[in-house]
Amino acid sequence: MSVIEEVLQYNKKYAKRFKLGHLPIPPSRALAIVACMDARLTVEEMLGLKTGEAHIIRNAGGIVSEDALRSLIISHHLLGTREFMIINHTDCGMLTFKDEKLRKNLLKKTRTATVAPLLFHAFSNISENVRQQMQKIQTHPWLPTDIPVRGFVYDVRKGRLEEVYA
Amino acid sequence: MSVIEEVLQYNKKYAKRFKLGHLPIPPSRALAIVACMDARLTVEEMLGLKTGEAHIIRNAGGIVSEDALRSLIISHHLLGTREFMIINHTDCGMLTFKDEKLRKNLLKKTRTATVAPLLFHAFSNISENVRQQMQKIQTHPWLPTDIPVRGFVYDVRKGRLEEVYA
Repeated sequence: MSVIEEVLQYNKKYAKRFKLGHLPIPPSRALAIVACMDARLTVEEMLGLKTGEAHIIRNAGGIVSEDALRSLIISHHLLGTREFMIINHTDCGMLTFKDEKLRKNLLKKTRTATVAPLLFHAFSNISENVRQQMQKIQTHPWLPTDIPVRGFVYDVRKGRLEEVYA
Repeated sequence: MSVIEEVLQYNKKYAKRFKLGHLPIPPSRALAIVACMDARLTVEEMLGLKTGEAHIIRNAGGIVSEDALRSLIISHHLLGTREFMIINHTDCGMLTFKDEKLRKNLLKKTRTATVAPLLFHAFSNISENVRQQMQKIQTHPWLPTDIPVRGFVYDVRKGRLEEVYA
């Protein structure tokens, strides 16, 4: 059986005991998080967030990409979030390659020309990467300058967040 | 106390009882999911996924944006995922506005010129939106044509996934 079939069977049981059908669209704790897609980050669980409390935006690396900015703008302006967190983590896959090498390998493996995405956002220094992501939020003209933006490195060995300061 | 301070205090307790420090980078169930950032979707919980099992990519709408494609390419080629799921949901905030109107409001509210993101990806038909996202994966030259890509609408009232067929 495929993994998708397995999770669908699980979801049928989940739906039977589901009791949260009344929640509104805006996150009740007005928090938005940008985190890495890494399987070892169960974001809600590590932060004690319940269903309905926060927007969770995730991608490879926990990058404040143009798409993450799109999501944060919608989150703040249309759905009222008032605090932003960025979460990168130790042992990230993004530390293990270089953009140029990955692109070359893809071109060779798939026998195609270069297409978007043009950047993969690999990085070599986690704290510095977190700082760069914070700056992208703090300098975007469509996000307020006074919104708290705090950045963290999650230690996948210890389950613990460490703050990154500017 | 800020919400960020609250979740940090929670994380200290979480770290004390943390026992998953041994997990490897590749997701053990080789599954990658693109889902909406909506606070009512606790993706791992609704699918019975445990820490370490799947890549979770999330943004406003559950859009297969260029950034989500970047994440899926990394997920498949570098970290071995072999099945993809797309999850949109009922009562989505993306059904409540139009791109052009939001952009006009932002320009007026912030007194700035147009900057990226140029698209917000609002949509009016959930199933059709899911189909479009599936197609973006299926036609990308850097993702294999034989990888299973299945799309779903999550019912936020019932806690249940319904499949969208091409």
